[in-house]
Amino acid sequence: MFDSRRLYDGAPAARHVPADQAAVRRSNLGLVLRHLRDAGPRSRARIAQDTGLNKATVSSLVAELSDRRLVTAGDVDRAGSVGRPGVLVHLDGRGVCGIGVELNVDYVAVLVVDLRGEALLERRVACDVPGLGPEGTLDAVAGLVGEGVAAAAARGAVPVGITVAVPGLVRSPGGVATHAPNLGWRDVPVLDGLRARVAGDCPIRVENDANLAVIAEWATGPEARTPDLVHLTGEVGVGCGVIVDGRLLRGAGGLSGEVGHTPLGDPDLLCGCGRRGCWETVVGLTALLRAAADPEDPVHDHGRDLETRLAEIAARADAGHRRTLDALARVGSALGTGAAVLINVLNPRVVLLGGYFAVLGRFLVEPMTAELRARVLAPDLGGARVVLSTLGFSAAVRGGAHVALESVFDDPTLVPADGTAAGP
Amino acid sequence: MFDSRRLYDGAPAARHVPADQAAVRRSNLGLVLRHLRDAGPRSRARIAQDTGLNKATVSSLVAELSDRRLVTAGDVDRAGSVGRPGVLVHLDGRGVCGIGVELNVDYVAVLVVDLRGEALLERRVACDVPGLGPEGTLDAVAGLVGEGVAAAAARGAVPVGITVAVPGLVRSPGGVATHAPNLGWRDVPVLDGLRARVAGDCPIRVENDANLAVIAEWATGPEARTPDLVHLTGEVGVGCGVIVDGRLLRGAGGLSGEVGHTPLGDPDLLCGCGRRGCWETVVGLTALLRAAADPEDPVHDHGRDLETRLAEIAARADAGHRRTLDALARVGSALGTGAAVLINVLNPRVVLLGGYFAVLGRFLVEPMTAELRARVLAPDLGGARVVLSTLGFSAAVRGGAHVALESVFDDPTLVPADGTAAGP
Repeated sequence: MFDSRRLYDGAPAARHVPADQAAVRRSNLGLVLRHLRDAGPRSRARIAQDTGLNKATVSSLVAELSDRRLVTAGDVDRAGSVGRPGVLVHLDGRGVCGIGVELNVDYVAVLVVDLRGEALLERRVACDVPGLGPEGTLDAVAGLVGEGVAAAAARGAVPVGITVAVPGLVRSPGGVATHAPNLGWRDVPVLDGLRARVAGDCPIRVENDANLAVIAEWATGPEARTPDLVHLTGEVGVGCGVIVDGRLLRGAGGLSGEVGHTPLGDPDLLCGCGRRGCWETVVGLTALLRAAADPEDPVHDHGRDLETRLAEIAARADAGHRRTLDALARVGSALGTGAAVLINVLNPRVVLLGGYFAVLGRFLVEPMTAELRARVLAPDLGGARVVLSTLGFSAAVRGGAHVALESVFDDPTLVPADGTAAGP
Repeated sequence: MFDSRRLYDGAPAARHVPADQAAVRRSNLGLVLRHLRDAGPRSRARIAQDTGLNKATVSSLVAELSDRRLVTAGDVDRAGSVGRPGVLVHLDGRGVCGIGVELNVDYVAVLVVDLRGEALLERRVACDVPGLGPEGTLDAVAGLVGEGVAAAAARGAVPVGITVAVPGLVRSPGGVATHAPNLGWRDVPVLDGLRARVAGDCPIRVENDANLAVIAEWATGPEARTPDLVHLTGEVGVGCGVIVDGRLLRGAGGLSGEVGHTPLGDPDLLCGCGRRGCWETVVGLTALLRAAADPEDPVHDHGRDLETRLAEIAARADAGHRRTLDALARVGSALGTGAAVLINVLNPRVVLLGGYFAVLGRFLVEPMTAELRARVLAPDLGGARVVLSTLGFSAAVRGGAHVALESVFDDPTLVPADGTAAGP
């Protein structure tokens, strides 16, 4: 059976040797809960059969999960049953939720998701983060977290974790954004800043946005569970998250995926990182907008919602506007140049395009693919497909909420029997 | 305890659930044998303590391994012992060997290694492989394999496997070199060709040379067991092997690591793959030689031993020869440009330079590091160190021999009790 702990923690679950009876129990509770999430509702007998646990143990585990309001037992299973039909056990978990928040160049966003994956709140607010600076931005993020907690409380759900997505290098476990060139941030203590602003003791972690985006795609997107996956997010910068053989590629220091500063761009163009010729300078959102429209064009206005601005670009392209089409073709081709490097090095099964690359994907994929064909050494792109993400700009917050909820799957006893979540 | 099966097979050993008593026995025999290799000679009591197996089982396993001549029990362990001193059990395995062979642009090579890692034969023969073509080359490789088998037989060792390193894309499990641009080969059935030429039923596999080189470094080199490792081999082409989190990065179709054709080179230079501007065109051996010496200079002569030609380059550089020094500085800097991409994407702990990059490393590392500092986004290169390989041009054959011997660690019963290896 699939164990999603391997993805995020990077350690095979089988290495974990429970130290005592209570740890064995927690581990088995998590096993059953994950199985219900991944395989869908099923009878106790079927759970026992699938997991190898004995039936009495499964009954006891389901009873405890039910006490903790993480599962419900309801409808009768009549599918192909011989003998007494079993009662189906469902994942419930409406009582707990995970919160993903994101700060990016143009916006801050929040997504609250319960254990079943249902969104309780999703909000994105246009926001000039570089202009606002770290303190003002963390105030805005804390405000959104507060809205999330309130929305959850209104539905009777208690947050079990908050994950903050940052577009840049993050030092773990301290949660410091050491280097976020497009925000103009260096060594900003995001974790400490939010701990000081957010009430309660809900665990908070800070993570690179591209890592969270690829986790969301891998866990919930249309290409879920693709073991070799590259996810490119187009925003002001370019985020790159990589799954290798079913595990998040973190690198030795958690600093992997920084493909945006590969010298594949126009050598004369200055990048937000201070270098010249970075790939971002030809495929980032700024590059597209600059090529597509004059500076006074409203598509450049950071104060407007990004999706509205992108819809305007798409409308112009659909209307056959030459400059817009040329700009998109150029970005698509440049996207292929960098993606070819990733395909040559990583040989993924799928290259997922997210962020603005997905929104404008129908104009980008053709020139991108032409460039890939010219640049990838292996025949047929080494078997790689280019796929547009369906998660839109929500991928990072969705990944953040997913990671927060993983703590419950790791240890369902974090949620007490009265339905109120406890801190770890 | 470390289990090296994870490295090559890409599957955590813990996933393996032995199906029956015999499988449990084989698995435990392998466990003890690996432990003696990795941890060194020790008493049965200590093996039991280290592995968690009970003492009676360990005694029985050691007796069987001894019958198969894979271990010997000899000297008495007096180190810190309380009570009866134990007899030390050593890995022996002089009776079995693995054979690594390599075909490259300028040479074919063989290395025969016994289970203890001792080389029984190492040979490299200068050879114009593109000129000779597939048939002639496979004849030459089969001839070297024959020499290897004879040298092993003279020492009483029987080969358990042959691994062939090829500088290009290899389709597994068919062993077809689908694309080896620097040889001018496409879809050459290397495995079938060698099976037809090599007597006996010793298992043969075909693998990308860069993957085998990084396996050798990871298993036996000075940076052994570094969990995040990139290995760049400088030859006519550039090979790139990657270890991520202790596992070989193979990619979805086993086609990863093709960094040589990243468009980071001089856009006007034609590459062996038919494209222009590939990285290889500025860091491959041909680029160095062309920059360092006129066409009639004997360093260009493919008929001469490569190490002799490189020693000549090094001697000129040491003598302060301006053109040679400039060529090396240019290659070093270009090496940094490509390595920076790999560091940004993969965040390794160590970048190992092999092949001619290692031989001339003292002239390359300084300009390379300067370029890395300018190009890597993370501070201090994200913690990465640049290290020169000590395996020289033997890395791929050493990796090949290592992979061949892994079959014995996976299943020691492949070696029968009379000391003659059986096919699988």
